[in-house]
Amino acid sequence: MSESRFSKLQTPCLLVDEARMMRNIDRLAQRADTLGVTLRPHLKTTKSVDAARYVLKDGTGPATVSTLAEAEVFADAGINDILYGVGISPDKLDRVIALHRKGCRVTVLLDCAAQAEAVAKASHQADLAIPAMIEIDSDKHRSGLTADDPELVAVGRILQDGGAELRGVLCHAGGSYGSVGRAEHEKCAEQERLAVVNAATVLREAGLPCPVVSVGSTPTAHAATDLTGVTEMRAGVYVFFDLVMAGIGVCEVDDIALSVLTTVIGHQTSRGWTICDAGWMAMSRDRGTAAQEVDQGYGIVCDAAGAVIPGLIVIQANQEHGVIARRPGFDGDVPEFPVGTRLRILPNHACATAAQHQHYHVIPAKADAPLTQWARFAGW
Amino acid sequence: MSESRFSKLQTPCLLVDEARMMRNIDRLAQRADTLGVTLRPHLKTTKSVDAARYVLKDGTGPATVSTLAEAEVFADAGINDILYGVGISPDKLDRVIALHRKGCRVTVLLDCAAQAEAVAKASHQADLAIPAMIEIDSDKHRSGLTADDPELVAVGRILQDGGAELRGVLCHAGGSYGSVGRAEHEKCAEQERLAVVNAATVLREAGLPCPVVSVGSTPTAHAATDLTGVTEMRAGVYVFFDLVMAGIGVCEVDDIALSVLTTVIGHQTSRGWTICDAGWMAMSRDRGTAAQEVDQGYGIVCDAAGAVIPGLIVIQANQEHGVIARRPGFDGDVPEFPVGTRLRILPNHACATAAQHQHYHVIPAKADAPLTQWARFAGW
Repeated sequence: MSESRFSKLQTPCLLVDEARMMRNIDRLAQRADTLGVTLRPHLKTTKSVDAARYVLKDGTGPATVSTLAEAEVFADAGINDILYGVGISPDKLDRVIALHRKGCRVTVLLDCAAQAEAVAKASHQADLAIPAMIEIDSDKHRSGLTADDPELVAVGRILQDGGAELRGVLCHAGGSYGSVGRAEHEKCAEQERLAVVNAATVLREAGLPCPVVSVGSTPTAHAATDLTGVTEMRAGVYVFFDLVMAGIGVCEVDDIALSVLTTVIGHQTSRGWTICDAGWMAMSRDRGTAAQEVDQGYGIVCDAAGAVIPGLIVIQANQEHGVIARRPGFDGDVPEFPVGTRLRILPNHACATAAQHQHYHVIPAKADAPLTQWARFAGW
Repeated sequence: MSESRFSKLQTPCLLVDEARMMRNIDRLAQRADTLGVTLRPHLKTTKSVDAARYVLKDGTGPATVSTLAEAEVFADAGINDILYGVGISPDKLDRVIALHRKGCRVTVLLDCAAQAEAVAKASHQADLAIPAMIEIDSDKHRSGLTADDPELVAVGRILQDGGAELRGVLCHAGGSYGSVGRAEHEKCAEQERLAVVNAATVLREAGLPCPVVSVGSTPTAHAATDLTGVTEMRAGVYVFFDLVMAGIGVCEVDDIALSVLTTVIGHQTSRGWTICDAGWMAMSRDRGTAAQEVDQGYGIVCDAAGAVIPGLIVIQANQEHGVIARRPGFDGDVPEFPVGTRLRILPNHACATAAQHQHYHVIPAKADAPLTQWARFAGW
């Protein structure tokens, strides 16, 4: 594509490659179909009503969010089946109830008796059975109970007997981000599946309902081969992908649909540096590839058309300055970029980079169509 | 103070301790007076018109900004003397000229002939002598020329002969962030001073004007003892301070005026974890203390009243989850926090943490006064 379409854009800014995004979305949708599970996309990566329309088949859900602000914005946009996928605190239940009153079915997540008691109490007071999922831990990564913890049934019973709605169990194999390659991710996926399926069995054997059995992380969603006993799958960053996902083999660099457009603002020739206006404010401080086999700095450098320029990364970042230089160990030729040159940077972590911006500039899949703009929102 | 004032706040959110902030502002204002230089505060940390009123004596300037979006917002708020402290790219000059037309004197920064030619050309076309400063490098940290580089006079002459306004020279001793203790910062300050004073001498000896000689970084601004030859000083993060600044000895932890209010959402008792709703989305991914003598994780934990709780830090962060646990090596007692407990987290880097939020909730210096709210803005 011609870079003249970018000439009116102020840098730094976010670009979305619509064709790549649609390819990524189709890939996971097809996997979910093949595996026989419902896909409940996580909207925390894009935080955009426009982007949500691409991932939600009929536009109303099901969806996952990471903040109640997301739930409120998406509810206003007509999405009516939302899982708030972060442990609920009692003070947030008023907003959950308000969303139900507006016609959006919000399911909360919890993993302890104190939370279950608060949800039961709020359900009783509001005369509304608040739907709740119990979080299950498969890899000691973050939150959740295990199937053999007596608290699992206790929590389920508090919900069920207290007037809330026990919807089921949920697991997020966050540890899969630290594993490399499909074989490892398949193991994480099976571990994730077993954790929730076992928990569901424990609940059912205790006479409790467990209609929903939910798994998901982008690596496990792309590697699972058997989801027997699972009813739904969640994933978020797959819509854009990023260098962290490429580094663990979930995607190729050519699948990354998000980049930051930047302008060259100077040089330090003796140090081999090109300085651009994509600092950490534009890229985020995420250094998720630092612990990977190939450290991508603050991102891989591409020309304005999106072609990777071999050997160049953003090796350091200040608030509004990115320093482009040779990747350590690269001894090939690298081009020179005069002041004013436009480049694109592929990010380590799409969720974090996108969060630094208020808009997406979308390069349409249709050749030579004009750029479009999507708003994104922030906050809690 | 009572934490009941926070009961209506949705977490995570930013808190500003007005009394600490005013103390920090007064401290640097007094230093500038003592050293006989003008203080040109950097508004990139706070990005808030409300906050800017505290640091600008008469409300109109002088100020430093890191984006043209800042310049535009602050110009609309009546600030009329602004240095845009990031190397100018030619495509941004239209916005600079538009600001001049609106009555805001924006000075640009540059360090090469191509930029100077673009500024001279734009000045000629707009019939407006765009003020420009030449950036000087004192520590190989980022951008800038050195006094012995023949390009310095060449750049000055392009500006002066081409119809722009050569305002002077500017240095930012960014390397001082990596030095610990007042003695080291004083050395960095003297190096910064010498770099710009020598550059000013070179320009003047070549017959060029150099009325402004500008230095500044928060560490050097707080350590300089002699600013002979310097006319102005810049600093930004000093308004709030943060753990990075405390770690290198520029402030005490008790000076930090910015914190994130968070709510406990769960536990992993066997791992000693308390999980809260301040993840990296609320704290930023900044790990600026990771390379310091004391790694503060994603921040130090305080009670809701702001008192530091010994031994606890946020040891890891996901998008909306912060994991609070013992600091490695700490073997004292730590309190337990039930679900729903409110805590405060002191950030590694105030600029990065504040950038994740859209509002500040301000705890007034006046005892028992109600909280106030300041908006902050983002973008470029």
